[in-house]
Amino acid sequence: MSGEFELIERYFTGRGAQRKDVLAGVGDDGALVAPTPGAALVLALDTLVDAVHFPAGFDARFVGHRALAVNLSDLAAMGAEPDWALLGLTLPAVDEHWLAGFSAGFDALARRHGVALVGGDTTRGPLTVSVTLAGAVPADQALRRGGARPGDDLWVSGTPGDAAAGLAILQGRLNAQGRAREALLARLQLPQARVALGVALRGIATACIDLSDGLLGDLGKLCAASGAGADIASRELPLSAGLCSVAPPGERLRYALGGGDDYELLFSANPAERAKLAALDAGVVLRRIGVVTEAPGVLVDGAPPGRDAGHGFDHFG
Amino acid sequence: MSGEFELIERYFTGRGAQRKDVLAGVGDDGALVAPTPGAALVLALDTLVDAVHFPAGFDARFVGHRALAVNLSDLAAMGAEPDWALLGLTLPAVDEHWLAGFSAGFDALARRHGVALVGGDTTRGPLTVSVTLAGAVPADQALRRGGARPGDDLWVSGTPGDAAAGLAILQGRLNAQGRAREALLARLQLPQARVALGVALRGIATACIDLSDGLLGDLGKLCAASGAGADIASRELPLSAGLCSVAPPGERLRYALGGGDDYELLFSANPAERAKLAALDAGVVLRRIGVVTEAPGVLVDGAPPGRDAGHGFDHFG
Repeated sequence: MSGEFELIERYFTGRGAQRKDVLAGVGDDGALVAPTPGAALVLALDTLVDAVHFPAGFDARFVGHRALAVNLSDLAAMGAEPDWALLGLTLPAVDEHWLAGFSAGFDALARRHGVALVGGDTTRGPLTVSVTLAGAVPADQALRRGGARPGDDLWVSGTPGDAAAGLAILQGRLNAQGRAREALLARLQLPQARVALGVALRGIATACIDLSDGLLGDLGKLCAASGAGADIASRELPLSAGLCSVAPPGERLRYALGGGDDYELLFSANPAERAKLAALDAGVVLRRIGVVTEAPGVLVDGAPPGRDAGHGFDHFG
Repeated sequence: MSGEFELIERYFTGRGAQRKDVLAGVGDDGALVAPTPGAALVLALDTLVDAVHFPAGFDARFVGHRALAVNLSDLAAMGAEPDWALLGLTLPAVDEHWLAGFSAGFDALARRHGVALVGGDTTRGPLTVSVTLAGAVPADQALRRGGARPGDDLWVSGTPGDAAAGLAILQGRLNAQGRAREALLARLQLPQARVALGVALRGIATACIDLSDGLLGDLGKLCAASGAGADIASRELPLSAGLCSVAPPGERLRYALGGGDDYELLFSANPAERAKLAALDAGVVLRRIGVVTEAPGVLVDGAPPGRDAGHGFDHFG
C-alpha cells in the first residue's frame, strides 16, 4: 500500500496496549514478539464482512470493537490470555472519520485486554476486516470443544439472546424503549468477550465453546466434538430483564436458544465443580442449564427442539 | 459459518505440512501450537483482494499460491522460518472447482515450506483472501529494515522486473512468445519466496526487505527505516534473459526498478561479507547492485531516478 493509504497506518501504529514482549510492531515486514516461555500459543482468525457480520452502516467504532471482540471470544473459549493482534483492513476508500472511529473502537478494547496491535495490512476493496489474535495458555490447560463427558453439567455465562434482540430492535422487528432498548443494543454493539472467565475455567471446564452462532447451534458443535449429546432445561435459561421486557413470552426462548453474536461461553464441567463455579467471580453470572448425555443430539426439556427454537433469526456470525 | 460453507472446511482441514508442534488445528475455537523454545515469533498478515492484488479471473491455484507466498516472503525478509498459517477466505459463493484449485495451490506451497494450515475463517462476501503466517527466528538474529549503515553494500536476489513483465504479457501490453513468455508468466503466477535465503542471511545482512512494491519503492522504505540513503548502479541490475528478450532496451530498467510482486529479497551487508555472500547457496543468484549512503534518498547512477523509473506499472501489491 502506498499513497493515501499511508494515512491508514497512522491510525494503527502503536495502538492497543504497550507490551514489553513486542520486539518489533507495525512497520517492518512482520511483527517480532517473544512468546510466553513454556506456554502454548493460541491463534485465531476471524473475518467480518460489511452487511454480513455487521449491519450496513454500523458505527465504525462498533465495527472496530467487534473485529477484536470475536477473536477475544475465541481465545476465551480456549482458556487463553490474548497478547498480540494483527489487522487486515480492506476499505473501498480512505474515510478519515470512519477510520478514526474504527481505530478508537479497536484500541479501547485492545487496551482493556492488554492486547498490542503489532501488524497487519491495509488494502483497497470491499469493506472487510480480518483480525488475527495470538495468546497464551499452558498446553495442558487449554479448553477444548471435545472434552464433555456424559453426566457433566452444562453452564452458560451471561444472558444469551440479547444481541439478537438488539439486532431485531435495530432493524425494527422488535419495539423497545428506554433502558431495555439501550441495554439490548449495547449487547449487539459492544459485545464483551469473557476472557477472564475462560482463564478461570482452566482445570474446571471439560469442554468450552463461545456463543457466536446461537446456543443450540454451538452446543451441537461442542457435543459433536465430544461424541456426546445434551439436554437443556428451558426454565434454567438465563433471560435478561431487557429481553423479557421487549420479547413476547413465546419468543424469548427462541432468542436465547437461537440468537447469535452473544459471545458468552458455554461449557461443561463435572458436577463436583458446582461449588467452585458458584463461587467463581469472573465478572459475569454463570448458570447451570442442563446436562451432557450419552445419546448424541441436543434436546430441550427432554425433547428435540422445535424447528423454531434455533432458527428464524437473521443473526450475524 | 454453517450450511454449504461446511464444504469449504473440507478443502482446508489437514492441509499443508503435518507438524508435531500443532497441538490442535482446524476445528476448535482457535489453533493450539507449541512455539519453538527460546525463539522469537514472527507474525505477518497479508490480504489479497480480487482484481487488486491479482488479475480478475486469475487461476484459483495461483491465488492460493500467492496468498501464502506473499506471507512467506514477509517472513523471509525477517530471516524467519515459517511454521503455521491461518486462512481467512471470503467468497461470493461456494464454487467447488475454484476451491479445489485454491486449496491445491495453497497446499503445495505450504508443504514445500513445511507450513501447517492450522485455522481460519470462511465467510460469504466479495472475494478476499487474508493469510496470517507465524514462524520463528532467534530474537537477536531477526532481519530488520532499519539496520543499513552508510558504506554497506546493497544486494538483491533473482531478477526483479519479471513479474511486472509477466503481468504486461497477460494484459497484452507486451508481446512475448515461447520460453520467455512462459518464464515471465510463471514469475507472476507462482512467485517463489526466498525463505532459505532469509535464514542464510541471519548474522550477515544488516537490513532486509522483500520486493513487493518495486525495487526503488522498497529500497526507499529500507533507507527511511535505516536513516540512510542508497545509490544503485543500473549496469549491475540483474535482468533476466526473458525480460531482455521481450522488453525494449529503454524499458528494461523501468521493469527492474519499478515492477512489483517479485518477492525477491533486497538487503544490505558490510563489504567484509562479500566473500561469504558470493559463496552462499540459497537457491537463487545474488547480485551486488549498489551502496548505502549517508545522504538520505535513493539515487540511480548517482542521480535521482527519472519520474519514469519507478512508476507507470499497474502492478499488484
